[in-house]
Amino acid sequence: MTYVVIMAGGSGERFWPVSRLTKPKQLLKLTHPTMTMLEQAVERIERLVPVENILVITSSVLQQPITDSMPALPPQNVIAEPAKRNTAPCLALAAVEIRKRTDEDSVMAVLTADHFIGDPLRFGKDVEECIQFARTHDALVTMGVRPTRPETGYGYIEVDEAQEGIVPVRSFKEKPNPATALDYVRSGRYLWNSGMFFWRVSTFEKALAEHLPEVGQFCSAPGDVATSFARLPDISIDYGVMERASNVHVKQAAFPWDDVGSWDALARLRGADDAENVVNGPTVLVDSQRNVVVNATTTDHVVTGVGLKDHIVIVTDDATMIAPKSRAQDVKNIVKALRDKGRDNVL
Amino acid sequence: MTYVVIMAGGSGERFWPVSRLTKPKQLLKLTHPTMTMLEQAVERIERLVPVENILVITSSVLQQPITDSMPALPPQNVIAEPAKRNTAPCLALAAVEIRKRTDEDSVMAVLTADHFIGDPLRFGKDVEECIQFARTHDALVTMGVRPTRPETGYGYIEVDEAQEGIVPVRSFKEKPNPATALDYVRSGRYLWNSGMFFWRVSTFEKALAEHLPEVGQFCSAPGDVATSFARLPDISIDYGVMERASNVHVKQAAFPWDDVGSWDALARLRGADDAENVVNGPTVLVDSQRNVVVNATTTDHVVTGVGLKDHIVIVTDDATMIAPKSRAQDVKNIVKALRDKGRDNVL
Repeated sequence: MTYVVIMAGGSGERFWPVSRLTKPKQLLKLTHPTMTMLEQAVERIERLVPVENILVITSSVLQQPITDSMPALPPQNVIAEPAKRNTAPCLALAAVEIRKRTDEDSVMAVLTADHFIGDPLRFGKDVEECIQFARTHDALVTMGVRPTRPETGYGYIEVDEAQEGIVPVRSFKEKPNPATALDYVRSGRYLWNSGMFFWRVSTFEKALAEHLPEVGQFCSAPGDVATSFARLPDISIDYGVMERASNVHVKQAAFPWDDVGSWDALARLRGADDAENVVNGPTVLVDSQRNVVVNATTTDHVVTGVGLKDHIVIVTDDATMIAPKSRAQDVKNIVKALRDKGRDNVL
Repeated sequence: MTYVVIMAGGSGERFWPVSRLTKPKQLLKLTHPTMTMLEQAVERIERLVPVENILVITSSVLQQPITDSMPALPPQNVIAEPAKRNTAPCLALAAVEIRKRTDEDSVMAVLTADHFIGDPLRFGKDVEECIQFARTHDALVTMGVRPTRPETGYGYIEVDEAQEGIVPVRSFKEKPNPATALDYVRSGRYLWNSGMFFWRVSTFEKALAEHLPEVGQFCSAPGDVATSFARLPDISIDYGVMERASNVHVKQAAFPWDDVGSWDALARLRGADDAENVVNGPTVLVDSQRNVVVNATTTDHVVTGVGLKDHIVIVTDDATMIAPKSRAQDVKNIVKALRDKGRDNVL
């Protein structure tokens, strides 16, 4: 059996003001005109596994919105983390859920809800290859994406030699500085860490027991999940397991991929006009270049600019957000300031 | 007798989206929390002349809004130009109106409706001095403002020597380039052209007859004003009369003055915060400096930015306008683009 786990707990403050506490990035239609990112993630994988085998792990605040917005998913497959932890406890919880439904020889494919994937057919083939490898090997398999630019916002996976197929991982690298990123891309031995994982439940349980014994203990004897989960450490699967394990393999994927980390990603993912502006909704830009302008108002509000260059402008009915593209990552600082000011009505 | 003519016909596209076709700059509260610029202009002068002697000359589209918004003014004193012309025909029309009410020896004081004047008492004294000079001399008197910076957006008035009191004008200068503006300021012999004028009606009529005979003819025999006004040339009083006449004098005024030509003027006129931002309405700026941000929405909309520097952001219920401060003059290009697109609902 194969179970797919889609991690969909992110709060996505970097897409404020379109994203909100109960409507984070994975519930936005950022990369498709009519489908949310989570809907796209499910659509991509439901060709490969029955929908009963697709689990969505999210936060308690998002459980109901996701259940409501995904009628095709069995409601019991939308699982809320009892507390906000990191990806290692999250995936342990998923393993516990899978063990309730099947045996330890099942393969668990961990996918993301909020990344852009440009070639769903190629993605499906690559996922199938990883699942097959995980089923037949005692390995932790991850998906690495061939870099197309010296991106400093992603983690990298080092291999001896990048080649088609699945190869052992030499090391994981944190987000590099620009010079290092350029070295990585030029060397041809580094892949982007896409955050997708494939393993037998038994292999995963063994790895947890070895590298994160507290989390491993939770897996083997969860007891009252709500109580025991809350005691787990706040640690990522990359840091807690993947960087420490010796049986890590990576599949070099070739599909276009982007983590859609902040508003400036739209400049990469959406078609720009002649002035390299990416616009959505009623806008009038005069002598303006290389901007991302989203008018998400529901009235006949018009968003305009003159002489505007390299900025992000997002307007909703109740909030306007403006930043240089180079500061797209810092939109979360506005969210923090609004929270500090008690403006919870726009969060 | 003294008549005051306040020119209030401007369309003020550079303050869009707060200014609109029927609500231009002079009807906005740009420089005072509760009074429009026109209300301030009238208040400044009604200490000096009875309100019956204050004429407001405006466009036909603004006649009603101004009449409604200025209940203290006699309705017949709000006069609409029959057609859109420049300041020379506008002031000829004012002279015709004044001659209907009084004789040619009356002094006509021409003031502006949409400029900032920082010291109303000093302004009143200077105006009285100009009126007195005009009453006793066959002179075209203008008010020049001592420059406080090498402004390239204003016209300049050259005198032999700047001094207190009223002196002959040597020449008028168009808006200078930055180097020339610096020379002007350093020389001490140049004043800003404030667009205020003082003359006896008879002196003005003589000047028109000599330098703009068509307009002079209109003054002496207007006939059917609606028809004859429309035939007048589109020419400014500066270009058509002041630059050509030999009897021009200037009063060196000392009150703070600003033409409030575009949104960036607010940075000069309003108090800024520690980060040199001038903000109005609910805003949250993180790590942002030297911006002008106006949230003029009537809902609980919040305007936010991060890393924003030297920009103008204006938000109303139905429009957002963003530009670098250096492009403040070009807001009119947005208005033009909206007109071309048929978005008249926001103009």
